[in-house]
Amino acid sequence: MEQRIIKRLENIVGSTNIIFKPEERICYSYDGTIQRGTPDVVVFPDGTGEVSEIIKLANLEKIPVFPRGAGTGLSGGSIPQHGGIALVLTRMNRIKEISKEDLLAVVEPGVITGNLHQEVERLGLFYPPDPASLKTCTMGGNIAENAGGPRAFKYGVTRDYVLGLEVVTPTGDIMQTGGRTVKNVTGYDLTRLLTGSEGTLGVVTQIIVRLIPKPKDKKTALVIFDDLDKAASTVNAIISEGVIPATLEIMDRITIECVEKTAHLGLPIDAEAVLLIEVDGSLAKVSEDIQIIEDICTKNSCRAMEVASLLADRERLWKARRAVSSAIVQLKPTKISEDATVPRSKIPEMIRRLREISEKYNLFLPVFGHAGDGNLHPNIIADKNDKDEMERAEKAVGEIFKAALDLGGTLSGEHGIGVMKKNYLEGEMGAIGLNYLRAIKKAVDPQNILNPGKIF
Amino acid sequence: MEQRIIKRLENIVGSTNIIFKPEERICYSYDGTIQRGTPDVVVFPDGTGEVSEIIKLANLEKIPVFPRGAGTGLSGGSIPQHGGIALVLTRMNRIKEISKEDLLAVVEPGVITGNLHQEVERLGLFYPPDPASLKTCTMGGNIAENAGGPRAFKYGVTRDYVLGLEVVTPTGDIMQTGGRTVKNVTGYDLTRLLTGSEGTLGVVTQIIVRLIPKPKDKKTALVIFDDLDKAASTVNAIISEGVIPATLEIMDRITIECVEKTAHLGLPIDAEAVLLIEVDGSLAKVSEDIQIIEDICTKNSCRAMEVASLLADRERLWKARRAVSSAIVQLKPTKISEDATVPRSKIPEMIRRLREISEKYNLFLPVFGHAGDGNLHPNIIADKNDKDEMERAEKAVGEIFKAALDLGGTLSGEHGIGVMKKNYLEGEMGAIGLNYLRAIKKAVDPQNILNPGKIF
Repeated sequence: MEQRIIKRLENIVGSTNIIFKPEERICYSYDGTIQRGTPDVVVFPDGTGEVSEIIKLANLEKIPVFPRGAGTGLSGGSIPQHGGIALVLTRMNRIKEISKEDLLAVVEPGVITGNLHQEVERLGLFYPPDPASLKTCTMGGNIAENAGGPRAFKYGVTRDYVLGLEVVTPTGDIMQTGGRTVKNVTGYDLTRLLTGSEGTLGVVTQIIVRLIPKPKDKKTALVIFDDLDKAASTVNAIISEGVIPATLEIMDRITIECVEKTAHLGLPIDAEAVLLIEVDGSLAKVSEDIQIIEDICTKNSCRAMEVASLLADRERLWKARRAVSSAIVQLKPTKISEDATVPRSKIPEMIRRLREISEKYNLFLPVFGHAGDGNLHPNIIADKNDKDEMERAEKAVGEIFKAALDLGGTLSGEHGIGVMKKNYLEGEMGAIGLNYLRAIKKAVDPQNILNPGKIF
Repeated sequence: MEQRIIKRLENIVGSTNIIFKPEERICYSYDGTIQRGTPDVVVFPDGTGEVSEIIKLANLEKIPVFPRGAGTGLSGGSIPQHGGIALVLTRMNRIKEISKEDLLAVVEPGVITGNLHQEVERLGLFYPPDPASLKTCTMGGNIAENAGGPRAFKYGVTRDYVLGLEVVTPTGDIMQTGGRTVKNVTGYDLTRLLTGSEGTLGVVTQIIVRLIPKPKDKKTALVIFDDLDKAASTVNAIISEGVIPATLEIMDRITIECVEKTAHLGLPIDAEAVLLIEVDGSLAKVSEDIQIIEDICTKNSCRAMEVASLLADRERLWKARRAVSSAIVQLKPTKISEDATVPRSKIPEMIRRLREISEKYNLFLPVFGHAGDGNLHPNIIADKNDKDEMERAEKAVGEIFKAALDLGGTLSGEHGIGVMKKNYLEGEMGAIGLNYLRAIKKAVDPQNILNPGKIF
């Protein structure tokens, strides 16, 4: 990158908030995927005005800009393509307001999601979205990818909590979308259009999120099944009874085996499925719900069931689920984490298809995820240095997407398209849908400055 | 309109599904507002293919198309401008699927919202959005305007229940958005962009909506207050306690007086506010919630409170709220129904400002609406033949919008912008926001064929 441009960027953000040495820039070349791309320069703006100036400069000089939070994304959404400017928003990490009366918080994009959880829960409030990376990921990234998490089944995803945004447009202008009210039908719903747009339609510089009262009580159940269909029927029966657990997680046999081998939690490695069910709400509601769940699990011939009320006991039950990500990479270092999502009724069929794919390509493919909303996480565990295995993995990914679409599902439930899935997008959206997306992108970013090479 | 174009439209929809006589066309010139605009021709397509052909023809001949359901809209969203084609979707009124397992329904746009309620409730399921016009309004119109209703406080608006759409684009192509899963982050969120776009970005020809299990129990409370602030504090205290009623309606003194004078329900005409609170859920939860609500109302010095469990008793309490719309037009025939929405904490201040506006312009202005989400309905009751009064009303509307924006609110909570509020849009969105909207519209509808003259 030309020195005069670096100089101008330095004038905007200050000399301590810019990086251009190669050994430093490389730290901003990755995310949670196997994708890599090193930016020409990394800037750390503080404030909407600085972001606006950077984007205006980028438009003038026709340099691509890649917005970035903590780099925990799972679709390559923040990875620079062909150099450009990495726009790191982690300095903008203030929680500006938490209103108990209006049940909302105003935050900057660099706020870590888990920190927001803590701050609002201290006041008896609750921000439900809980992506697995919540201890490091940022709210800006959550908006960009429309992050989900286990609690999404009951509470919905990030999109369902965004009330308003401050956005720097792809041409560097500043606009406000939505506001401080839950109901707002003034103009197109830019708030939701921006949410999940993966940094291609604007840079979010301030976020108003809706909060809810913190549930008063919680109970957790770990239920073991010898039959995958029985586990799936249990999920449907619970929902049919009108019980909506906060989380309804499933782990398949391969995952159970893997977790048990590394974490030694006493899980039966011959079980076909484990459900981890957590209910929350008022004391009366939680007691009522867990009783209904126990009855349904028994009726559906579960092998065993443990219910916990106290925090320490609940944490113990959660250990199995929390151990999954680290357990499955013990075997091989490269994890290709997918989030193909199917209608709830198709979960058993999807798991069966995933097993066939795993056998066909001789790949290690544990399946776990959010059974309540059909959002499974098939993970291919491989070694990126094994060329043959990686080729088989690539073919398997294609078949996973095909299976999800065949069953009326979607490529991505909560990770986004990024660079990892863009070749498959037309398979889901069709050429007309893709053209519609492209037309919107071109209309608001005519020079293709903001996060080019993503989604399409 | 040229005869050859009418002939071609007739070929598409059949001779019994087209209207071109002036006395018949006039039936499609209105909605729920005081706006009027007669189309040159009215067509009643059946099927996505026919809609697509009509839009393609309209593009070829550069004729504007105005999609329309039952015409119950409150912002002029479906009113034709300068003639054109009225595209009436009421023949496409099939409920194509209700899935208990996947908790969804697939419907055509002409399905009446209340009919969908009945059909899904028969199966123990629930579709929450409940606009006041639910007995006549159609699902397509609900999507176009992102309709709300009293239950939106607990359950959210139409947008929160739309999973996927089949859409004929402004150029006549057919595309699918979203799908059958709750989680879906594949590409931009076109489903939500289309929802609330007031028929300007596409014609919805099929809708997949999310359903939830039907709540098992309900209780209703009618609470009378001598003090507006006490009523507002009660609303906040209920929510702070973690109780989220299904509906939390407020009526001001003027509204109470008006209802009592016409419906004689025994309401105290000197009360400052009435709250109508309904809780739903499981038996245990409903009992627990209503007890908390009773305690809070007592603590906040309500004058009187009546709680009902049985359907007949609950219906009696609802009578006051349901009587509002017909009661307020007894005095004068023209109702200008607004839906300016403020953050919940600003409700008392907004009601005070509305009273000042009413006095300043010497207008009859009852206020009622959804207190839970700050979505008030200030209604100006006037006579459209009284020129002076209508001029004062117009000025008052401007001041209502200004007050809502001053208090951090929005022009429209659930009615949409249509033609009624478009001159005020820039005041809320700013020039940058408005340009962003316009860029999207122009990108997908370059010839401005679909519902021109709406929103901006």
